[in-house]
Amino acid sequence: MSDASIEAFCPRFHEAVELIGRRWTGAILRALFFGTERFSDFAAVVSGMSDRLLSERLKELEAEGIVVRTVIPVTPVRIEYRLTAKGLALRPVVDALAAWAEQWLPLPSEPAR
Amino acid sequence: MSDASIEAFCPRFHEAVELIGRRWTGAILRALFFGTERFSDFAAVVSGMSDRLLSERLKELEAEGIVVRTVIPVTPVRIEYRLTAKGLALRPVVDALAAWAEQWLPLPSEPAR
Repeated sequence: MSDASIEAFCPRFHEAVELIGRRWTGAILRALFFGTERFSDFAAVVSGMSDRLLSERLKELEAEGIVVRTVIPVTPVRIEYRLTAKGLALRPVVDALAAWAEQWLPLPSEPAR
Repeated sequence: MSDASIEAFCPRFHEAVELIGRRWTGAILRALFFGTERFSDFAAVVSGMSDRLLSERLKELEAEGIVVRTVIPVTPVRIEYRLTAKGLALRPVVDALAAWAEQWLPLPSEPAR
């Protein structure tokens, strides 16, 4: 492998894009930046995703240190999810992707530009 | 669905993140920004990806209008891939994700921070 090819591939970038790009993870992150905190609210926001998959994705984000899960001892018990510093640091990525999507992707009801 | 949940989910953002996050697509995009143009060079840069999958991903990016494929009539025929304006517009996304990965993801050989 040449020097150029070593530079062109970065294992950290690869890990980051595969992490954020995992099915539904981007939508969950965007909802977190919008202040969504409770499991049932994520389920409502990201419709089309099963509870099982939502739970799995939130666990992955927690394991990656991107999300922190807090159990609030009320009856019935309330569980809230929030972004950590590592998660909040993804803001420029989410914003840049949202800006690109806004400019370059048509709305599902619009004809392609 | 409440107004808040409608805002928190954006079908265009969802489409964008699922597109960029497709397995290996991020790494291919990054290689394109590094000037990788030829099929064999992508295969060298993004090691671990099969030629079949590389070909599939490049075709997807071409279908999305992110990459343009040029056939150069030499012997043997040469095929080059370049970013379109829509593809070049992904630069801030790639840069933001690279900066995040640099700061928050340990190198595979490093202990977790």
